[in-house]
Amino acid sequence: MYGVLSKVCSQVYPTECPLKNVLIPAGILERLDAGEIVIGDGGFVFALEKRGYVKAGPWTPEAAAEHPEAVRQLHREFLRAGANVMQTFTFYASDDKLENRGNKLTFTGAQINEAACDLAREVANEGDALVAGGVSQTPSYLSCKSETDVKAIFKKQLDVFIKKNVDFLIAEYFEHVEEAVWAVEVLKETGKPVAASLCIGPEGDMHGVSPGECAVRLVKAGAQIVGINCHFDPMTCVKAVKMMKEGVEKAGLKAHYMVQPLAYHTPDCSCQGFIDLPEFPFGLEPRILTRWDMHHYAREAYNAGIRFIGGCCGFEPYHIRAVAEELATERGVLPAASEKHGSWGAGLEMHTKPWVRARARRDYWENLKPASGRPQCPSMSAPDGWGVTKGHADLMQQTEATSQDQLKKLFDRSKTH
Amino acid sequence: MYGVLSKVCSQVYPTECPLKNVLIPAGILERLDAGEIVIGDGGFVFALEKRGYVKAGPWTPEAAAEHPEAVRQLHREFLRAGANVMQTFTFYASDDKLENRGNKLTFTGAQINEAACDLAREVANEGDALVAGGVSQTPSYLSCKSETDVKAIFKKQLDVFIKKNVDFLIAEYFEHVEEAVWAVEVLKETGKPVAASLCIGPEGDMHGVSPGECAVRLVKAGAQIVGINCHFDPMTCVKAVKMMKEGVEKAGLKAHYMVQPLAYHTPDCSCQGFIDLPEFPFGLEPRILTRWDMHHYAREAYNAGIRFIGGCCGFEPYHIRAVAEELATERGVLPAASEKHGSWGAGLEMHTKPWVRARARRDYWENLKPASGRPQCPSMSAPDGWGVTKGHADLMQQTEATSQDQLKKLFDRSKTH
Amino acid sequence: MYGVLSKVCSQVYPTECPLKNVLIPAGILERLDAGEIVIGDGGFVFALEKRGYVKAGPWTPEAAAEHPEAVRQLHREFLRAGANVMQTFTFYASDDKLENRGNKLTFTGAQINEAACDLAREVANEGDALVAGGVSQTPSYLSCKSETDVKAIFKKQLDVFIKKNVDFLIAEYFEHVEEAVWAVEVLKETGKPVAASLCIGPEGDMHGVSPGECAVRLVKAGAQIVGINCHFDPMTCVKAVKMMKEGVEKAGLKAHYMVQPLAYHTPDCSCQGFIDLPEFPFGLEPRILTRWDMHHYAREAYNAGIRFIGGCCGFEPYHIRAVAEELATERGVLPAASEKHGSWGAGLEMHTKPWVRARARRDYWENLKPASGRPQCPSMSAPDGWGVTKGHADLMQQTEATSQDQLKKLFDRSKTH
Amino acid sequence: MYGVLSKVCSQVYPTECPLKNVLIPAGILERLDAGEIVIGDGGFVFALEKRGYVKAGPWTPEAAAEHPEAVRQLHREFLRAGANVMQTFTFYASDDKLENRGNKLTFTGAQINEAACDLAREVANEGDALVAGGVSQTPSYLSCKSETDVKAIFKKQLDVFIKKNVDFLIAEYFEHVEEAVWAVEVLKETGKPVAASLCIGPEGDMHGVSPGECAVRLVKAGAQIVGINCHFDPMTCVKAVKMMKEGVEKAGLKAHYMVQPLAYHTPDCSCQGFIDLPEFPFGLEPRILTRWDMHHYAREAYNAGIRFIGGCCGFEPYHIRAVAEELATERGVLPAASEKHGSWGAGLEMHTKPWVRARARRDYWENLKPASGRPQCPSMSAPDGWGVTKGHADLMQQTEATSQDQLKKLFDRSKTH
Repeated sequence: MYGVLSKVCSQVYPTECPLKNVLIPAGILERLDAGEIVIGDGGFVFALEKRGYVKAGPWTPEAAAEHPEAVRQLHREFLRAGANVMQTFTFYASDDKLENRGNKLTFTGAQINEAACDLAREVANEGDALVAGGVSQTPSYLSCKSETDVKAIFKKQLDVFIKKNVDFLIAEYFEHVEEAVWAVEVLKETGKPVAASLCIGPEGDMHGVSPGECAVRLVKAGAQIVGINCHFDPMTCVKAVKMMKEGVEKAGLKAHYMVQPLAYHTPDCSCQGFIDLPEFPFGLEPRILTRWDMHHYAREAYNAGIRFIGGCCGFEPYHIRAVAEELATERGVLPAASEKHGSWGAGLEMHTKPWVRARARRDYWENLKPASGRPQCPSMSAPDGWGVTKGHADLMQQTEATSQDQLKKLFDRSKTH
Repeated sequence: MYGVLSKVCSQVYPTECPLKNVLIPAGILERLDAGEIVIGDGGFVFALEKRGYVKAGPWTPEAAAEHPEAVRQLHREFLRAGANVMQTFTFYASDDKLENRGNKLTFTGAQINEAACDLAREVANEGDALVAGGVSQTPSYLSCKSETDVKAIFKKQLDVFIKKNVDFLIAEYFEHVEEAVWAVEVLKETGKPVAASLCIGPEGDMHGVSPGECAVRLVKAGAQIVGINCHFDPMTCVKAVKMMKEGVEKAGLKAHYMVQPLAYHTPDCSCQGFIDLPEFPFGLEPRILTRWDMHHYAREAYNAGIRFIGGCCGFEPYHIRAVAEELATERGVLPAASEKHGSWGAGLEMHTKPWVRARARRDYWENLKPASGRPQCPSMSAPDGWGVTKGHADLMQQTEATSQDQLKKLFDRSKTH
Repeated sequence: MYGVLSKVCSQVYPTECPLKNVLIPAGILERLDAGEIVIGDGGFVFALEKRGYVKAGPWTPEAAAEHPEAVRQLHREFLRAGANVMQTFTFYASDDKLENRGNKLTFTGAQINEAACDLAREVANEGDALVAGGVSQTPSYLSCKSETDVKAIFKKQLDVFIKKNVDFLIAEYFEHVEEAVWAVEVLKETGKPVAASLCIGPEGDMHGVSPGECAVRLVKAGAQIVGINCHFDPMTCVKAVKMMKEGVEKAGLKAHYMVQPLAYHTPDCSCQGFIDLPEFPFGLEPRILTRWDMHHYAREAYNAGIRFIGGCCGFEPYHIRAVAEELATERGVLPAASEKHGSWGAGLEMHTKPWVRARARRDYWENLKPASGRPQCPSMSAPDGWGVTKGHADLMQQTEATSQDQLKKLFDRSKTH
Repeated sequence: MYGVLSKVCSQVYPTECPLKNVLIPAGILERLDAGEIVIGDGGFVFALEKRGYVKAGPWTPEAAAEHPEAVRQLHREFLRAGANVMQTFTFYASDDKLENRGNKLTFTGAQINEAACDLAREVANEGDALVAGGVSQTPSYLSCKSETDVKAIFKKQLDVFIKKNVDFLIAEYFEHVEEAVWAVEVLKETGKPVAASLCIGPEGDMHGVSPGECAVRLVKAGAQIVGINCHFDPMTCVKAVKMMKEGVEKAGLKAHYMVQPLAYHTPDCSCQGFIDLPEFPFGLEPRILTRWDMHHYAREAYNAGIRFIGGCCGFEPYHIRAVAEELATERGVLPAASEKHGSWGAGLEMHTKPWVRARARRDYWENLKPASGRPQCPSMSAPDGWGVTKGHADLMQQTEATSQDQLKKLFDRSKTH
């Protein structure tokens, strides 16, 4: 969505804009207010872990500074897939998280946040995309630090986002609405549009606050966009956002809605989400959604009135492309990467084998029940359920590495799979 | 494996070498003769399809010329993951395939092959890797063109490989050993080392020639390395290579062995491989191997006496990294990307949640039976079995696009899933 | 539980008792009031269908008159398995059901009900068991007949039960609490103890009345025992009975509780229960519970405070034996048939093969996750959901057979599996 | 098939025949020579274990003497289901097995064998059925007793069969063809027709003798009917019988063929059959075949040229009825129990619910993929593979019970599931 409001580049980049008097992308709220669909990007930590640039466990985003070419390439792939939002790769880039449990990094938090902003802006400028600066839940909150301490952590990341002039802000991946409200309160002070996204399901946050009530609190704190990301599969997330919408409307409030779910099927999750599944994080492969699952998701999200539709952990560029293709009519545009994808399998018309050409049709793929190829594996797991949440001793963070003794106690406690 | 034979750069790049008198990587045969393990890379067409640069159906590699940054990045990720071989992204880059069934490309075959060589070389030079120029089966063969015609097609790609001075050659993805022998005969004329890899399983090639007999014919034709790639899962491919080895040894011949399987579980395949599975190519997600499956594969391949161990369709960089990590002791080196991966889940020691830290141990991941999250899906499929092979009218290729009438006949013939 | 109240035979069989002054079994309420566990029997229609004496579709019990030896044998097997209740095989033995949709029977309803009472009494007298006369939901109710009409139908069966002097009465398998209340009102007039059992799950009856509210209405109508039978698997039924208990206690009422679930796993049911599953009734085999599942069920039911614990469709005698074995300590007795069953697999100590002897232990069987042997089948189905209930034209009953035209309309409407 | 050869009753029962000059059933060979289909019965030990009369572990048939009404009833159910053969319930009724490992019985082998013959004859006379006296493999053979010793054991059972004048003899459930040959040699001496049935699969007997070679040895020893029973699912057994047929025909011999498989799906068995599956014997429920699976089996067996088609462990009367219904046209008769079964689900036309009436059609049931209702269970298991066979110390039998010390060693050796 370009330039409907005739903003010019010089307003946004007053001192350094290389282009004069050209149309620039409309802002996030202008798009949503106009009823536009905004496609989000996918999760970076999981995608870059598979590519070799993020370490599972700490899940920190130092690659933005350390291996910028890899981060830039992933941004580009999501842009080509149709994403209108480039989230800065700043997940878990708060200083307390970067130094947690022996994670020895050679970059400061500020360096990582700055590099991430530059990469997101560089690629956003290559297409119709906005840059969103993101903050996420902190070890400090789980360790029962004060509101002042936690807010100071958000503020530090925010200083970089303002300096780099991101287009809007996202507070995402919060398990406790209380911390998310604190984050929104900090982000609001900038005057930028604020989105707030919890990683909860229909059962509500870790303190048992329902999705509807969570949404009300976030809107009251100043978030213009509220929703759900991560932790659950697309249909579960859409269901939880619906509950948020009902809560907001019942309270006589207004908001826009966003959803950025996992690309993993999680019918067997408890309230803690996929973290509790025994397959997390190194055995999730059989749960990965197909592109056809994504078509279904995009349609359901759209029908639920959600207009900011993206992805989180597990999403690869082709998943976002499928979302964009499903909504191509409504958006009036196909993503760039569809140059390499026949809609609903049409590219198979060019396959050398006749029985594969016979699959070049929508009803084939819509009705397929894909096999796992794993006859000795089940279709559902029993999630762990340690019942540990904010304030529990086991959640207290530490800068030194987890000791062998600490590990042994955990191993003994863990059930054997 | 560097420079044991004191070769110098100037011998390899006599006219244009930017470095004088430095050690260069040992060749493929020197490594294998010395008992070294050579790690291959993963398949490019599937990985780049997911990233938005390759079209499923034609599966042609024009991205080498069209989107070089994406191809370069994937090469780099495999290099970081431990690969010692950068295969030129020239799969299906023969002119007869590039123009098959209405695939309108803006690049010539020569342009694509040249660009692919340059990218492979550029990245290979960043680490301990060799460049392998690859040819694969042709539509011409399936359409019953003559030996002369088919060989001319290989020759055309080969001219580029020689000009670009690749380190060795691979004839791969052949369903009929007859065509593979023709390819080997052409490749042999260059004097470069030649590897030959069929996409067959234990049941043999599409004409019913057993793996053992196939291997004998390839060795007699001049291949120094023989093996299996694509079409079947790792354990099935290892089994087929074992049969090749038995055949070669029984015939009193000698060879090195390679294996580059799918990263998909395929216990339900017939002799045609995963092409026949109803999930091919857009519903294979639940079959993707975990990194722990890859450890198992790497060990089995090694124990079978295979020393060129890589991957094909479905392999992502972390899969190759798992192969390299499993064989780290034997190879004496961890891959670069292991900076971002704790062996056997050790990185989870840094996770914020205690029950996830409890998974930071080998026995947990070795024994996990990962759930599909798809309770309405089966664990095995019934493969298509059209029984169509070389010479059948349905396999005759055409330059014009498949017509609606041709498609309708195929749809009617196809069973509904 | 024999004779704690010193009742004598002559009180029960005033004119025909063959024994004088002997102790007779205590009544159902005396047992439950004393805190005893009462084991129910299993479902007869499914068990006898497999043996060749009941027709799936009409599911009528004419075998009581037609093949008494088969019905007697099944009673005996449940008695040997530990059952304390012999339910008369009078399910669907109301005249309106017997003549429904072209079911041509050569016996009258009265003949069937009388024969069933005689068989139940004959076998009950062979052990520690009571005879329960049972009525169930009527086609008349589904066809919107009046309360007077429906009650007249129950009355007709009841006349036989009184004549045959059953020990207590059960109104079971009701989908609508309204009809069950009518049944209880009729049964209460006899002065016999009355149990009322609905075939509903946690979502409530077909009119949306919650289990708790259903139970309250039944108790107020005069039922001393309330509970759930059929339609759902054991754990779901136990859950629904818990909700009943909570409802009754919240209302300040008192009752005993019963549960007689399916012996089929039904995690994928909607509110209509297993009738909606595509496998009903001829493809349910993979869902059959093992004896170990039954141990788990018996313990859960007991822990929930349920004391009348039996089974319904799918239960075979060994399932009831497993219930009785699990509660052997609490009941102070092992069932007769345990002469042929080592507890927790102990009989395998006598197996000829050592690896089978190695399975003669509780932890082996408790932890087993039994495979289906059906890799091309899913683990869950999508239930039919026609949304048709009382009053809908499709539920109107007719005495003539379903016509070909009626069938065709149904086939067209049905989804294809 | 009655009386085509005009035999009269007085020839068979010379002294005690209650009927004079009436037609009697034709013998087994006359039927098979005439091309008739002979339907066998199902396995008694598993069916009676579920009913409470046989102990899993020893699996001995004392119920014939102890609970004759239960055995008689099961015979009747199989007769009604269409069985033409009543096998005497004498499986494992050899004296060495009856006293094995502490199995304390109050009946002698002779008493059990006699009672079993009487029951089979009584029910056979109620319909068109023959009585077959059966012997099976002995602990003595597994314990390496001599040919003389083993033959003496068979001879002892045989004396009863001759005294009771059974119609023909079956040597069944042999894992080693050597022992089966010994059995046939003993049975042949009686002059009665002899059938020989091994419990092996396509991989051959426990000594590695192929099915084809096994069949040749049995035919040469004098068996007129050869085949397979138990241990594998129907399709696997049919495949193995086909191999037997090919072997016999290749050797220029002639025979009739029989098959009596499990009613359990066993795609994951090794050569030892279902004994090796972790679910044996108390967790096999999810593997039970549906009646529709049985239709498929009956057709395949018929198409393979097998004419004696029955069942073994897991078969319930309705399974045999399905076999008889599938072959009703070829046999010219429906079984008696089909009075209670509409072909291909036709009885559902009378169901009260319209969506169940919509299932009253063949294509519905033929295409159903029944769900297990067990999302946490796999579809295949890893069989035990202890590699223990005849002669191994662990197979030596003993009359005293397995000791706690012996058990402990086995438990330690067993893998944990």
